[in-house]
Amino acid sequence: MELGQVPLLFSRLPMFPFFDAAHYLASVMALKEQRGAVEVSRQSPIACWFSAMLYCFGGSILSSLMLAEPPVGFLANSTNIFLASSVWYLVFFCPHDIIYRCFSFLPLRLMIAGMKEVTRTWKITAGVAHANSHYKNAWLIMVAVGWARGAGGGLISNFEQLVRGVWKPESNELLKMSYPVKVALVGAVLFTLQHAQNLPIARHNLMFFYTTFLVVTKVTMMLTQSAVSPFAPFESVLGRMLFGWQQTPSKVKGEARVSSNGTSSVCDRSAGEASESIKKGQAKKTE
Amino acid sequence: MELGQVPLLFSRLPMFPFFDAAHYLASVMALKEQRGAVEVSRQSPIACWFSAMLYCFGGSILSSLMLAEPPVGFLANSTNIFLASSVWYLVFFCPHDIIYRCFSFLPLRLMIAGMKEVTRTWKITAGVAHANSHYKNAWLIMVAVGWARGAGGGLISNFEQLVRGVWKPESNELLKMSYPVKVALVGAVLFTLQHAQNLPIARHNLMFFYTTFLVVTKVTMMLTQSAVSPFAPFESVLGRMLFGWQQTPSKVKGEARVSSNGTSSVCDRSAGEASESIKKGQAKKTE
Amino acid sequence: MELGQVPLLFSRLPMFPFFDAAHYLASVMALKEQRGAVEVSRQSPIACWFSAMLYCFGGSILSSLMLAEPPVGFLANSTNIFLASSVWYLVFFCPHDIIYRCFSFLPLRLMIAGMKEVTRTWKITAGVAHANSHYKNAWLIMVAVGWARGAGGGLISNFEQLVRGVWKPESNELLKMSYPVKVALVGAVLFTLQHAQNLPIARHNLMFFYTTFLVVTKVTMMLTQSAVSPFAPFESVLGRMLFGWQQTPSKVKGEARVSSNGTSSVCDRSAGEASESIKKGQAKKTE
Repeated sequence: MELGQVPLLFSRLPMFPFFDAAHYLASVMALKEQRGAVEVSRQSPIACWFSAMLYCFGGSILSSLMLAEPPVGFLANSTNIFLASSVWYLVFFCPHDIIYRCFSFLPLRLMIAGMKEVTRTWKITAGVAHANSHYKNAWLIMVAVGWARGAGGGLISNFEQLVRGVWKPESNELLKMSYPVKVALVGAVLFTLQHAQNLPIARHNLMFFYTTFLVVTKVTMMLTQSAVSPFAPFESVLGRMLFGWQQTPSKVKGEARVSSNGTSSVCDRSAGEASESIKKGQAKKTE
Repeated sequence: MELGQVPLLFSRLPMFPFFDAAHYLASVMALKEQRGAVEVSRQSPIACWFSAMLYCFGGSILSSLMLAEPPVGFLANSTNIFLASSVWYLVFFCPHDIIYRCFSFLPLRLMIAGMKEVTRTWKITAGVAHANSHYKNAWLIMVAVGWARGAGGGLISNFEQLVRGVWKPESNELLKMSYPVKVALVGAVLFTLQHAQNLPIARHNLMFFYTTFLVVTKVTMMLTQSAVSPFAPFESVLGRMLFGWQQTPSKVKGEARVSSNGTSSVCDRSAGEASESIKKGQAKKTE
Repeated sequence: MELGQVPLLFSRLPMFPFFDAAHYLASVMALKEQRGAVEVSRQSPIACWFSAMLYCFGGSILSSLMLAEPPVGFLANSTNIFLASSVWYLVFFCPHDIIYRCFSFLPLRLMIAGMKEVTRTWKITAGVAHANSHYKNAWLIMVAVGWARGAGGGLISNFEQLVRGVWKPESNELLKMSYPVKVALVGAVLFTLQHAQNLPIARHNLMFFYTTFLVVTKVTMMLTQSAVSPFAPFESVLGRMLFGWQQTPSKVKGEARVSSNGTSSVCDRSAGEASESIKKGQAKKTE
């Protein structure tokens, strides 16, 4: 009986302040690890702060835009803004980089990453419910808004990069989905199905199992530094069934390469930015 | 008497399902003919689907953004989304490309193109009426929203291309208007004037004559493969009167070249994308 | 007693038509001085007109987007649109460039620039009050909307340039703030504090003193052609206190260079566009 109540109690877990703080910390640290971000923080703290807010509140901004609600609405929640801004300040400007180094310590990093994944579930369910309050039973809108909330900054990464003066049109999260964006899409579909009572499972149970899956997968991927998406086999089957990938055997390899790259896109991105910042440095020299 | 009722009956023609389907078919085929689109459809079906939806519902999305209505609203109309998605799937992933090849057959292509032009009239009138319901008699807003609905994906082509990883800032539909964008602007002005009762013509008559003009021009241009816009003489006169194009005789040639290129912009675009995809291919080789 | 009433009378000054006209004139002349703008005006008057509207009404459009109000709302005010369009037409297409040359005469130019700065105060206060009517006492939103209104086209310059076929992702007004954007931010903060009654000063007095500061600084900077922002010392102190700029002495110089460039960004921009248009010219030759 005790064990059966765990999902219900879990689904009542408050996100504020600890899980929200972990989300902000993980997001801002991911921003700091983008090549060029530290230079931006020195050159223009306001651009860096705005970029950090897009990382932290990107899902909320995107879903507001989709539902024609004020995209600045997130600024009304002063407490969360203050928390996120403090985290941003400490990560970027703490003397001797203490905070960043401290949370780069693997066990802490794993804990932060796990807690961030928990907030993803809460965001997706909130997004699905919010979309349903605007459009009754428009399941495509529920999926879209849930996805936007859950995948957060990923989907607007092109425009987040633009704030920092980086523009990479050749890649976006729709062309090469990273693992978090994929898993948020799956989650949005699941919670929409559950909301429309097409899944024989209670909401708190689905939240519990989905969150467990998120956390376990994330921690495993971080520990093994694996770039293999757990969805790869399903994608391959779906691709073969729907889009005829088996008809072009030489293409299948390419696909596999792409989807495995998808998960390691953060590294790719950093590498790309590295070469870019090198180019810029050279350009400055020649000026 | 029978003949006089034709415009009235015509104006009551339902767009769903046949004309809508023709619009989706023509739009998705135009997308498939963009160089690089087929590669995108293999690499990321979701990006390709999203791109196709921007082609099919671009006007609706743009006018929603302009009037601060939810831009995801078009997803609430499940039937139309399902129809457009089926068309997208059949055009891109049908075995042996049967559907695409079938509708590339000239007579069918002409019919589809003609039916697509019919939907343009309906969209412009709907846009003008919708804008009028928000802002009473704000004729500039009526023109803008009618134009946005009618010119559809054209005006947001920069951002549609971004979804596919293509970015061509040096060209947009305001800098080099293609013929459909121009004719939609003219239509939006005409229907706004009619709505404000400044034109001595009934709405259904204007719809009938404007649609006839659209269809005849489109079919003629497709048959003769002509790049000369029917508006070229008017543009030239207007340009001379308003913007002093005659004062710079060397420029006039340039202008003429530009406006004739305007109509053939689809070919230019494809050529541009071709060279670009060649570059990308070479880049991949060197990687 | 007479003197004490000056600020109150000043705060009741109507902006329409003279100050608005000065704002449009200064904005459109700034647009014309962007390299490439004159070519755009010949090639596509509509793109040029749209660009001019973004310069003139950029603040209104941006704040509408932020508060999820129709961004085309500014088109409903036909009188102002007509005024701005007339100014645009006269500046760009007047025979022998009479209007542009006339207002390039320094004393007139100074007067226009001074009057434009007056409208900035009115826009910031209107933005702060408007945001407050949406979100009671959400001071961050009040600052953001007031800033957006006051800094106007600057903040959306990337997208304004895109209309003209120019794309410079490596620079934006958040990365390298120009002086008008900075002073609008300071103004938005001051008027928000005043609105929340945290400043011991009446609204009309603050408006008077802030406007005086704006006008005097602007005229001084134009007369001395100085690129030194009056905020440079404060920025330096703040930067040292908050972001540890003193810890990296070699960086401080870089910072100073950046902030002094910030004010001269219009020149930089023109130079950038010049080199770009040269490149384009060469590209055309080689075609």
